[in-house]
Amino acid sequence: MELSRRHALAGAAALAASPFILNVPARAVAPLADKQAPGFYRYRVGDIQVNAISDGAGSFPLTDAYIANAKKDEINAALARAFLPKDRITTFYAPLVLNIGGKLVLIDTGNGQGAFASSKGNVGQFTTNMVAAGLDPKAIDTVVISHFHGDHVNGLLLADGTPAFPNAEVLVPAAEWKFWMDDAEMSRASGDRMTGLFKNNRRVFEAGLKKKVTPYEWDKDVVPGLLAVASIGHTPGHTSYVLSSGSDTLFVQSDVTNLPALFATNPDWHVMYDQDPAQAQATRHKVYDMLVAEKMRVQGFHYPFPANGFVEKDGNGYRLMPAPWSPVM
Amino acid sequence: MELSRRHALAGAAALAASPFILNVPARAVAPLADKQAPGFYRYRVGDIQVNAISDGAGSFPLTDAYIANAKKDEINAALARAFLPKDRITTFYAPLVLNIGGKLVLIDTGNGQGAFASSKGNVGQFTTNMVAAGLDPKAIDTVVISHFHGDHVNGLLLADGTPAFPNAEVLVPAAEWKFWMDDAEMSRASGDRMTGLFKNNRRVFEAGLKKKVTPYEWDKDVVPGLLAVASIGHTPGHTSYVLSSGSDTLFVQSDVTNLPALFATNPDWHVMYDQDPAQAQATRHKVYDMLVAEKMRVQGFHYPFPANGFVEKDGNGYRLMPAPWSPVM
Repeated sequence: MELSRRHALAGAAALAASPFILNVPARAVAPLADKQAPGFYRYRVGDIQVNAISDGAGSFPLTDAYIANAKKDEINAALARAFLPKDRITTFYAPLVLNIGGKLVLIDTGNGQGAFASSKGNVGQFTTNMVAAGLDPKAIDTVVISHFHGDHVNGLLLADGTPAFPNAEVLVPAAEWKFWMDDAEMSRASGDRMTGLFKNNRRVFEAGLKKKVTPYEWDKDVVPGLLAVASIGHTPGHTSYVLSSGSDTLFVQSDVTNLPALFATNPDWHVMYDQDPAQAQATRHKVYDMLVAEKMRVQGFHYPFPANGFVEKDGNGYRLMPAPWSPVM
Repeated sequence: MELSRRHALAGAAALAASPFILNVPARAVAPLADKQAPGFYRYRVGDIQVNAISDGAGSFPLTDAYIANAKKDEINAALARAFLPKDRITTFYAPLVLNIGGKLVLIDTGNGQGAFASSKGNVGQFTTNMVAAGLDPKAIDTVVISHFHGDHVNGLLLADGTPAFPNAEVLVPAAEWKFWMDDAEMSRASGDRMTGLFKNNRRVFEAGLKKKVTPYEWDKDVVPGLLAVASIGHTPGHTSYVLSSGSDTLFVQSDVTNLPALFATNPDWHVMYDQDPAQAQATRHKVYDMLVAEKMRVQGFHYPFPANGFVEKDGNGYRLMPAPWSPVM
């Protein structure tokens, strides 16, 4: 048995001499479907139905700014260890729809329709995938926002600026609301990114939702079974959740890490999106140590779809073991 | 931040006192879709489109017979390390449809319609998922069989015993054909399992397909771009493949391992389905050492859907790192 790539190519070259070439007459072939499967995935946490719904993935060149305290070579080495292409970062997005006792609860909303028209449809797929899952945006009872970054809040509005979930109450972390709606904080914002975030949040929550939101506090259930827990650093009000039903639990981490192959493996790396990098790093260790100790299943907004699994300790960091896909609910 | 399960439950208990209970009036909720997403997944290997199509998964109690040379406690420990439930084995099935230059090539066929009526639809989902992927069984040009076990060949026939892929040529490993069609081998078969396999293969290939198959040899392309390589032990003619297009390659391992969490991690374990366990073990090491050395992507019939990834060395064994789900082709 000789299995090398070279041999594979030699095999292809030797083909002309092979008696096994199919000589089927050419016939018309219907144009093949080439769309990816719809990006939704369902599982249960006790009596609760969890629907992980992909908003797609965006890809961009790796820059020096992406991780403040890691060199491009180190990042490329981490990408290589994860069998990912070098010099390129792909970011995945996966909001959740929970069915808790007949109520539909959406956690985070994705990048929104049209916001990424330039992405050629690679991102902004949330609504399409939600509908493919048999879920109607009008049937959403509650939207829970983890933090006020565009990939989590922009989907609150349709392209025309009206609410995307017209029958839903919108619940936001009290600390997050306080920070981003504070004019003094906005006036202190430095740099295009922070200024842009403030402007975007005013657009979404003031112009779009007319401030019709309900702030929620940490250490309380946002909706029955969904406990809000502070996991700050990424933003001042960044929130994760413990979902529980009976003895079954799920940790909904939100953005405690971005891509696990980079930031679970290297929890001390400071991704450019972490507003308070040192605090985010401390939170990352605290959360992932807890996930390891409790063997708790975790769902991550930026994990590759279907974006859930279990965490094990791995050297100085952690490793996400994706949960096996179950073909039935 | 206190994230333990106990706290989560305390949080739920404290709910009655929370001001954040939603007090939305009860309203009619349409019955929720609870079907899992269709089990197909597409990616490219060079110019070739690979469609991994789930045939579902079967689950059964762990028995002492499942692995000849491992104790139940050791198996349960391996399951626990992979965050899988103990005392239970879940087996996944994923045939492939390749689109090579406009020809549709199916590798292995799954358990077949109706064969597992008792599984409540958990297995035998191949045709449903194939149609969901926009692929018509009548459009399959070629069926390539890796080996003659029921979960690979039974899908060749419909429930009424007629061919499921009426326009396809069926290609089978020459060594596999020779073994299972040999009356002397059949008369030497011992035990219910081997006797049953011989009978099943006569049913499928004699009664069903009237022996209309084309045997293929190793180390040659079965169809252009798909090189057959011997990977015996699991059966006498067990075949894997190197798929290549341009500089891009994929190893289609067939049953070199069953569930990777058990048999990539513990390549010396002898699953009950390996006909020549020592040979299968040697093959496993050879193939997985090659996958590590070549960093070659691998697709596995019994890997959890979508059943592909990359292999790294892990202690005395190997570990499958699932490839991230791409939301676009």
